[in-house]
Amino acid sequence: MTFEQMWRDLAPVGRDARTGGYFRQPYGAAETELRHWFVEQARARGLEVEGDDVGNLVAWWRPAGASGRGVLTGSHLDSVLDGGAYDGPLGVVSALAAVDLLRERGVVPRKPIGVSVFVEEEGSRFGLACLGSRLATGALSWSVARELRDRDGVFLPDALAASGLHPDDGDKAWDLAAQVECYVELHVEQGRHLVDLGHAVGVASGIWPHGRYRFEFGGEANHAGTTRMEDRRDPMLTFAMTALAANKQARLSGQRATFGRVQPVPNGTNAVPSSVTAWLDARAADPEALTGLVAAIQRQAAERAERDGTTLHVTTESVSAPVVFDPDLAARVATGHEGGDWPLLPTQAGHDAGILSEAGIPSAMLFVRNPTGVSHSPEEYAEPADCLAGVSALADTLALLATEAPT
Amino acid sequence: MTFEQMWRDLAPVGRDARTGGYFRQPYGAAETELRHWFVEQARARGLEVEGDDVGNLVAWWRPAGASGRGVLTGSHLDSVLDGGAYDGPLGVVSALAAVDLLRERGVVPRKPIGVSVFVEEEGSRFGLACLGSRLATGALSWSVARELRDRDGVFLPDALAASGLHPDDGDKAWDLAAQVECYVELHVEQGRHLVDLGHAVGVASGIWPHGRYRFEFGGEANHAGTTRMEDRRDPMLTFAMTALAANKQARLSGQRATFGRVQPVPNGTNAVPSSVTAWLDARAADPEALTGLVAAIQRQAAERAERDGTTLHVTTESVSAPVVFDPDLAARVATGHEGGDWPLLPTQAGHDAGILSEAGIPSAMLFVRNPTGVSHSPEEYAEPADCLAGVSALADTLALLATEAPT
Repeated sequence: MTFEQMWRDLAPVGRDARTGGYFRQPYGAAETELRHWFVEQARARGLEVEGDDVGNLVAWWRPAGASGRGVLTGSHLDSVLDGGAYDGPLGVVSALAAVDLLRERGVVPRKPIGVSVFVEEEGSRFGLACLGSRLATGALSWSVARELRDRDGVFLPDALAASGLHPDDGDKAWDLAAQVECYVELHVEQGRHLVDLGHAVGVASGIWPHGRYRFEFGGEANHAGTTRMEDRRDPMLTFAMTALAANKQARLSGQRATFGRVQPVPNGTNAVPSSVTAWLDARAADPEALTGLVAAIQRQAAERAERDGTTLHVTTESVSAPVVFDPDLAARVATGHEGGDWPLLPTQAGHDAGILSEAGIPSAMLFVRNPTGVSHSPEEYAEPADCLAGVSALADTLALLATEAPT
Repeated sequence: MTFEQMWRDLAPVGRDARTGGYFRQPYGAAETELRHWFVEQARARGLEVEGDDVGNLVAWWRPAGASGRGVLTGSHLDSVLDGGAYDGPLGVVSALAAVDLLRERGVVPRKPIGVSVFVEEEGSRFGLACLGSRLATGALSWSVARELRDRDGVFLPDALAASGLHPDDGDKAWDLAAQVECYVELHVEQGRHLVDLGHAVGVASGIWPHGRYRFEFGGEANHAGTTRMEDRRDPMLTFAMTALAANKQARLSGQRATFGRVQPVPNGTNAVPSSVTAWLDARAADPEALTGLVAAIQRQAAERAERDGTTLHVTTESVSAPVVFDPDLAARVATGHEGGDWPLLPTQAGHDAGILSEAGIPSAMLFVRNPTGVSHSPEEYAEPADCLAGVSALADTLALLATEAPT
């Protein structure tokens, strides 16, 4: 099945007819269908499918004579809420297509090549991005993960059980480092660097550090009509000022700060909220800058809370350290192509490749040009020709890495 | 059953163990249980229960010799989300207790006395406050009401059917004006006027005009990490500035403006929202002031939308005209009591009494002192002694109105 056929297979799964966006939350119907589709595709290619207890999947191509640790490539199949078609699936479909292309080209790998799918990369259900790869690398323990709940209060183990997965109390994710020598993830670009540079494909240099912080603004529930403005303790105001302050702080410093999710209680039109919870997504070029950014936002929030008579409690939900992808690997991947080297780009988005890199598995990322730069949106796009250039680039990279002597 | 016993009956119904607040949304389990309880209480008193197709209820006391149109008293049993115990139920329980007290006192009404329960007074489920009384007075037609949906998309007729009510396509609410000569609603005060004045009971002079306006801020969904701040069209910022502007505008003019409900799409931590919908609750002393208040907020929102590259669409969901309660009736209710007259107070909260008054049914309201002034909150409260003073005041009022010659 060609890239185009596979892409057509996936197009309707989890797509909202109204917005055109995708809802492929982990362990939900759409994402489960995608994982079944992946297993079918892998089996049709004679790949050997392994799954762990949380739903991560690898399909291994082990040609006769291949030995040692494998070269892993892949991405994820889940989406943000109302997300695009490309973020995640492009890497998985390209990986399967790259295996086909290597076989067409007659390349015989000296190491196993694995096509992987990590679960809950976006953190759109359980709030922790790269959940699957964190468990698979040991960066997150099952004893912590089992306490995670989605926004409906469903615990991760119950979501797994509902999806037909049955983790017991032990840590039953893979020990990836023992099986994998290096990892390559292809991903749609989430900015316009490649458009500006005039390249279809680029290579990641590193990932900015980023974090998620839960801001809980507490006030006093009251009647929206009868309570005089000066008698209120309205947490919506403290949130509103904080959202504006975060934007300004990040804008002035070339960083990123976003409040995209907010939950007032009780969220009724004629009630001053008793509380407003909002989540800050913050990213900066280095850890000190990130700490400074969050501290500045928190300080302004606290000052406004003082004025509003509200309370503020900030919880760090996750922090991802900066990632510098293996420079030698990136340079080897990027150079020596017809038509010149592929450009090296930084990214502000977290990826499973960052988690594997942190775990000591040399990792690289290929980006495919995105004409608008828009992602996490129904508008996310890549031209078919650029997608095929990506498949070819990934095949080149796998050939380079998998025909070296096994380690 | 005494006031205290009835109050104890109701205390656990729809109460959230965590917050102590009440969730008694129309046609839900808790509110349905309350309506069944009301029917039982009415029948135990030998009252004749009538219900209409949308769940409004009246229990009639028709003593031998009583004739003509009745004197109606009552309130509602639904609550806002996470609301208090008193807003609504105090008026219903006090009405039943007042009937008991009139009988104890040996008062024989010359007109029927009805104890009423109107549904969806708060508008917390279908977004339109006083839904039941609007239908019962003809202020709202069934052809409009049947299109109302709750926040889960459930249409009103389906919610009615799920609750065992089966309206057909006609307007089958009562023609209240044909049956009712006047209406008296007892309600917990939602401010601190009575505390300041040192009275347990007061009488309403009128209700400020108020409205609900849906602000839809449209932007562009995008990745919260990779999208530069200056490349965004983030509707959360436009909303945030609008919420602050609304507060300031109302504060400076002694009016009320509240954004207590907000719904971003997709509401994900790592996504710039594609849209944010927020509901403005606005109230002012007169209609011109209300129009001016909303226009000023909308103008500031539009200016900010221009700067943010977002769009703004404002829909008026409901507007309630000012209510001036029948001054003669209010004066008669308020005067001639032991210990002096009861004070007259304005209110900023909508009530079914306002809808009946607008429909030409002379109406009055009694308020019971609220020590904190807090309402629409688990903190809402009235002292037991003040509640009993309210029952006695309501009985006095009913005796005054129902022993006059029938009309």
